[in-house]
Amino acid sequence: MEFFTFINIGGTIAFAASGTLAAMRKDLDIFGLLVIAFVTSVGGGTIRDVLIGHLPVRWILDSSIILLIIGSAGITVLLRSKIEHLDKALTFFDSLGLGFFALRGIQEGISVQLNIPSCIILGTITACFGGVIRDIMLNEIPALFRTGQLYATVCIVGGGLFFALQQLNISPELIDIMTVLSIFGIRTLAIKKNISLPKINKM
Amino acid sequence: MEFFTFINIGGTIAFAASGTLAAMRKDLDIFGLLVIAFVTSVGGGTIRDVLIGHLPVRWILDSSIILLIIGSAGITVLLRSKIEHLDKALTFFDSLGLGFFALRGIQEGISVQLNIPSCIILGTITACFGGVIRDIMLNEIPALFRTGQLYATVCIVGGGLFFALQQLNISPELIDIMTVLSIFGIRTLAIKKNISLPKINKM
Amino acid sequence: MEFFTFINIGGTIAFAASGTLAAMRKDLDIFGLLVIAFVTSVGGGTIRDVLIGHLPVRWILDSSIILLIIGSAGITVLLRSKIEHLDKALTFFDSLGLGFFALRGIQEGISVQLNIPSCIILGTITACFGGVIRDIMLNEIPALFRTGQLYATVCIVGGGLFFALQQLNISPELIDIMTVLSIFGIRTLAIKKNISLPKINKM
Repeated sequence: MEFFTFINIGGTIAFAASGTLAAMRKDLDIFGLLVIAFVTSVGGGTIRDVLIGHLPVRWILDSSIILLIIGSAGITVLLRSKIEHLDKALTFFDSLGLGFFALRGIQEGISVQLNIPSCIILGTITACFGGVIRDIMLNEIPALFRTGQLYATVCIVGGGLFFALQQLNISPELIDIMTVLSIFGIRTLAIKKNISLPKINKM
Repeated sequence: MEFFTFINIGGTIAFAASGTLAAMRKDLDIFGLLVIAFVTSVGGGTIRDVLIGHLPVRWILDSSIILLIIGSAGITVLLRSKIEHLDKALTFFDSLGLGFFALRGIQEGISVQLNIPSCIILGTITACFGGVIRDIMLNEIPALFRTGQLYATVCIVGGGLFFALQQLNISPELIDIMTVLSIFGIRTLAIKKNISLPKINKM
Repeated sequence: MEFFTFINIGGTIAFAASGTLAAMRKDLDIFGLLVIAFVTSVGGGTIRDVLIGHLPVRWILDSSIILLIIGSAGITVLLRSKIEHLDKALTFFDSLGLGFFALRGIQEGISVQLNIPSCIILGTITACFGGVIRDIMLNEIPALFRTGQLYATVCIVGGGLFFALQQLNISPELIDIMTVLSIFGIRTLAIKKNISLPKINKM
């Protein structure tokens, strides 16, 4: 539970901060910035909850999430002059958030008895679609599709690992931790080494 | 009830007209125009209904809304040569619609026992996200985020006023009217005086 | 049932292929390509299921749809060098898929007792909005709104025909077939003859 809560808060903060930074680059006013921070943070989980019919969606019932996002956006704005130093912290939290939200989506899928491919897709949507909506609102091609990001790819790999580990005699908590860490690790490595997937040669 | 119905119809007409005008600027054909008018008018309420799980969504059960939108779009097209004169009427209805739809969203939130921040967010989504979807479909940065619009800001201020007035000994009907009028009034003033929120200095 | 299944599979394949081709034009990597193929194929049905409250959405419960889409995208990529010859096959399946998905949406609307305009709108959304989401994700004005496509128009005409035929003494299966074929036929004709709807003269 401690682990779960720690990462959940970390993920929410990281995505709120990434939304705030993206909005600042686009010259939005204060309020537009808050909307983008909010959408980036809760967008993926909202689509997940809608798809499986868990309505009302989670954040609408829990004002602490809303306050956490407003606080994170505010702190990001205040610290913007030190953002060069924050960059690494952001990537750190962002990748950790990606791992956690992917795991969260998979667990939600399992709790409503979805098949394995759907669970992996649900985890990927939870982790990635907040950023997709953010980019669509800012009128850009989603980062999800830009090279050198491996956003969705690491979620799918992590999801595959999660179900592969189920076959072994490992405690559920350990599988959760290994899933989050593998997503975090692969993405961190991919960004450092600038690894990208091949494009299709158009011929 | 009379007040409620009057403003509801006014809001639907205003947003249908604003969608039609936006579509004409983008050179869409007749049908694309109808789609945009429709989406602008029902988009915010649709997202609201989905988020709180009021499904099927309202407009799908009530064909009079559909006919009202088609009629409004048709009249807007017919009157397009007089649009210079219509501009003020449009801003009038648009701001009134904003007020009404924000109030409507807040009331829906209360009816499913949401906390106050969620009610205000739900009102803002109801009022603003039809326009957001319209702009995304037309491949523009949403007006919501453009300066000098105060779209979402007035909804949040109006929502805060609504809950502040609850603390006083005032009749519910009067609170409703004051909420709608304050949103209408602040937005009208903001457009006249070209008031905008500060942007974040990137440093 | 045979007819139904045949066209359903055909429509899913066609939309997956069209999404794959659109993604290749935009220089996405392999994974972005799969996401776009998936979204194009299931997007319209997903919005339909959400609007009428059929949750969880259909594809999330049926992994065969997911595998079918991955397979279709893979084959499209492998055959890309012969795409000049595939073009006609694609338009063929695409138009057939449009017909089927429009019919499917209408039938879902009837099964939850919607009024006629809502059924037609639901059919149009089912058939068209996968492509709308695809284009929004690729940062383009939706093809739905581009001239010479008649995407939504043929769905509305086909939907009107469906309900007109209900008044006559015809077997339901025959009405289904005639609806699909009329949508397929009108769209094929419109593309061949480059027919488009008039735009609104801005004056």
